[in-house]
Amino acid sequence: MTTLLVLYRRPDGDDDALDVLEQRYRDEHLPLVKETPGLRATRVWRVTEALGETTDYVLACAMEFDDRASLDAGLRSDPMRAAGRVLREIAPGLATFLVVENASDLLGGRSGA
Amino acid sequence: MTTLLVLYRRPDGDDDALDVLEQRYRDEHLPLVKETPGLRATRVWRVTEALGETTDYVLACAMEFDDRASLDAGLRSDPMRAAGRVLREIAPGLATFLVVENASDLLGGRSGA
Repeated sequence: MTTLLVLYRRPDGDDDALDVLEQRYRDEHLPLVKETPGLRATRVWRVTEALGETTDYVLACAMEFDDRASLDAGLRSDPMRAAGRVLREIAPGLATFLVVENASDLLGGRSGA
Repeated sequence: MTTLLVLYRRPDGDDDALDVLEQRYRDEHLPLVKETPGLRATRVWRVTEALGETTDYVLACAMEFDDRASLDAGLRSDPMRAAGRVLREIAPGLATFLVVENASDLLGGRSGA
């Protein structure tokens, strides 16, 4: 399983700027994302706090694909390209896109145990 | 649902430093985490790439709790406190702890639709 984990930083401006970002993210970006071929699951979170420090992150999203090839195909698809165009308009320079792979071997405990 | 999303930066040193971090994370930290009361699910990922930029992040972990009160109780529990002591030893200053809340309202599309 390959996941695209996206972290969004707070937009410049007052709280209204975040409200506008959220509205367009919900109404314009995510409906396009949901049409992406190969997308198995999507989760969206609001960041409420960073323990022990301050953080600029306000939103996070995890989009799961079967594997890296499926993610790459999804990224090249028309819906995801359109979603990307919306994102560059509503959150320019605010998003970090991490490609992450399940590391269930780390959850299994000591190897051989 | 409240999730503790932890992002780990690359340790100083060569690739061996990351191997040692992963081994102790698997063998010492995560077994303690798994004993945390109220923990509903744990996912661990390796960060393989950041699209369009470089990144210091190498690992990520999502720990799900029913709500913020359950997360706070979990953080105060003996297993999580012991897990935190291990973490301060094996990854000092390398972890960012984001408290995130499901934002399924954003996934639902235009409100009222």
